[in-house]
Amino acid sequence: MPIRPLHDRLVVKRSEPELKTASGIVIPDSAGEKPEQGEVLAVGPGKRNDRGDLIALSVKPGDRILFGKYAGQTVKVEGEEVLVIREDDVLAVLVS
Amino acid sequence: MPIRPLHDRLVVKRSEPELKTASGIVIPDSAGEKPEQGEVLAVGPGKRNDRGDLIALSVKPGDRILFGKYAGQTVKVEGEEVLVIREDDVLAVLVS
Amino acid sequence: MPIRPLHDRLVVKRSEPELKTASGIVIPDSAGEKPEQGEVLAVGPGKRNDRGDLIALSVKPGDRILFGKYAGQTVKVEGEEVLVIREDDVLAVLVS
Amino acid sequence: MPIRPLHDRLVVKRSEPELKTASGIVIPDSAGEKPEQGEVLAVGPGKRNDRGDLIALSVKPGDRILFGKYAGQTVKVEGEEVLVIREDDVLAVLVS
Amino acid sequence: MPIRPLHDRLVVKRSEPELKTASGIVIPDSAGEKPEQGEVLAVGPGKRNDRGDLIALSVKPGDRILFGKYAGQTVKVEGEEVLVIREDDVLAVLVS
Amino acid sequence: MPIRPLHDRLVVKRSEPELKTASGIVIPDSAGEKPEQGEVLAVGPGKRNDRGDLIALSVKPGDRILFGKYAGQTVKVEGEEVLVIREDDVLAVLVS
Amino acid sequence: MPIRPLHDRLVVKRSEPELKTASGIVIPDSAGEKPEQGEVLAVGPGKRNDRGDLIALSVKPGDRILFGKYAGQTVKVEGEEVLVIREDDVLAVLVS
Repeated sequence: MPIRPLHDRLVVKRSEPELKTASGIVIPDSAGEKPEQGEVLAVGPGKRNDRGDLIALSVKPGDRILFGKYAGQTVKVEGEEVLVIREDDVLAVLVS
Repeated sequence: MPIRPLHDRLVVKRSEPELKTASGIVIPDSAGEKPEQGEVLAVGPGKRNDRGDLIALSVKPGDRILFGKYAGQTVKVEGEEVLVIREDDVLAVLVS
Repeated sequence: MPIRPLHDRLVVKRSEPELKTASGIVIPDSAGEKPEQGEVLAVGPGKRNDRGDLIALSVKPGDRILFGKYAGQTVKVEGEEVLVIREDDVLAVLVS
Repeated sequence: MPIRPLHDRLVVKRSEPELKTASGIVIPDSAGEKPEQGEVLAVGPGKRNDRGDLIALSVKPGDRILFGKYAGQTVKVEGEEVLVIREDDVLAVLVS
Repeated sequence: MPIRPLHDRLVVKRSEPELKTASGIVIPDSAGEKPEQGEVLAVGPGKRNDRGDLIALSVKPGDRILFGKYAGQTVKVEGEEVLVIREDDVLAVLVS
Repeated sequence: MPIRPLHDRLVVKRSEPELKTASGIVIPDSAGEKPEQGEVLAVGPGKRNDRGDLIALSVKPGDRILFGKYAGQTVKVEGEEVLVIREDDVLAVLVS
Repeated sequence: MPIRPLHDRLVVKRSEPELKTASGIVIPDSAGEKPEQGEVLAVGPGKRNDRGDLIALSVKPGDRILFGKYAGQTVKVEGEEVLVIREDDVLAVLVS
């Protein structure tokens, strides 16, 4: 996707979370204000601190992340919706 | 649990607090806005200060912690609910 | 009490303030939004400043302190209510 | 355009986003609060940090950028509308 | 008074301001939101800056000060009301 | 004009913006919340940063500037209205 | 006046602004939210920055200043009303 985020922002493709119980049955997520999941498509170069040093991000393209439902802004690029959020709004990275 | 929190965030499994009087009788907690307890499942690497140094967290996996009822965000991972909160919202660690 | 506060927080046991007039008569405190008193049970290690240095607290266990009525959060640990507050919300220490 | 932005501000010419599906059909953007696109006409020299150092911007004239619909202020210069926004409100740069 | 303020706080005894006209006639202060006067009973050790240095206060016990009516918190100690305020809320010192 | 702004403030004389189309026809500006134009009459010495260094302003007397309609405060000096605004509220400088 | 402001505060005696047109006719100021004028009676020693250095004020006793109508707090000292404001709320100094 031809989009390069600035500073400490990430471009994320939202994905439906898989919800499985212990028995392996998939339960659809109830509609609510729950955080969501997505795959990181692109990351910014990082944010500069007060000394002017660039602090690199700790998330990388390909990571699957969790974020709050209302975090970031949805952007349409070439007809496709992506989410642009700041790394500080990323709750956690899913480890496979 | 395959989830890695970022920066100064923790992944916590909520647990029902045990309320015992001196005589050992368990009293159920009244429903209210009381802080809650949980066990730390995973911790982030820490937050960077203005100089770019990483300040490690003082909570570690396995710690039982107290936090405010509305602190953090609840996330469902593989059908299980966990809480992701910032260490600054942790009130105290329970010592066994 | 098996509870260890983090950073710049204190664990406090609220105590009824003794109100005495010059003549020694105890006057019950009128219900209101008056600050309250308590005894410090445990203190955190202190807060880190922007340089990463740990700034120790100036209150210690055993101190009797004054704080605003709505400062801090009340926590129940083993059936007993304690208050967890930040040192910055402590108004003063009572000197005996 | 005879306009020089100060500090970390950019002068941007809004442009209608092209929305194409995979099949190449152009879909007009529904009216809403979606972020918008534009071309950077001019950039400020950057912002000074607390040490007085000038931190140059990472966007340059000619870049096509994405920004929130309500970011920045619209200014009319010689009868033409341009947008003046801070670089921190730029979500991403479109890469051709 | 057995009370020791923390950090940049002061313990103050409110006093009725004397309002005299040029002719020496005392005019009672109209009830309103006017700042008030008081005598400093005790001062904290000062506030630490970001480097961890202690910045001593510029007000000392015995000073008569002016402060906003709603500044600080009123505390009852041994049946007597005192005001605990931050030095930054002190408007001025009266010079005799 | 006998007025010297402090710190990072500017004294500005508002001017009606000239609105010309490509064909050179002047269009009166519709009343709204559009930013406005003005000429800088005087500039402050600059703002001190956290190290105490004076950061000089990048706008100088004689510059024609753009600013938001509600930026700054209007002051009457010797019967004439001028605007006093902070440089950070200046959107851009018009280049002739 | 026996009043010494703290830190970056000033004690100011409000004065009615003289409004003269080019022809020298005095126009009374319409009642509104216009900034006001006053004479500086006393200035504080300055504010300390994050390094603990004292940054002296750039206004001195005797200066005639402009400030917003709602800036500062009005104090009555010996029956006379003065204004105590922070230097940052001073818009400009009138030069005679």
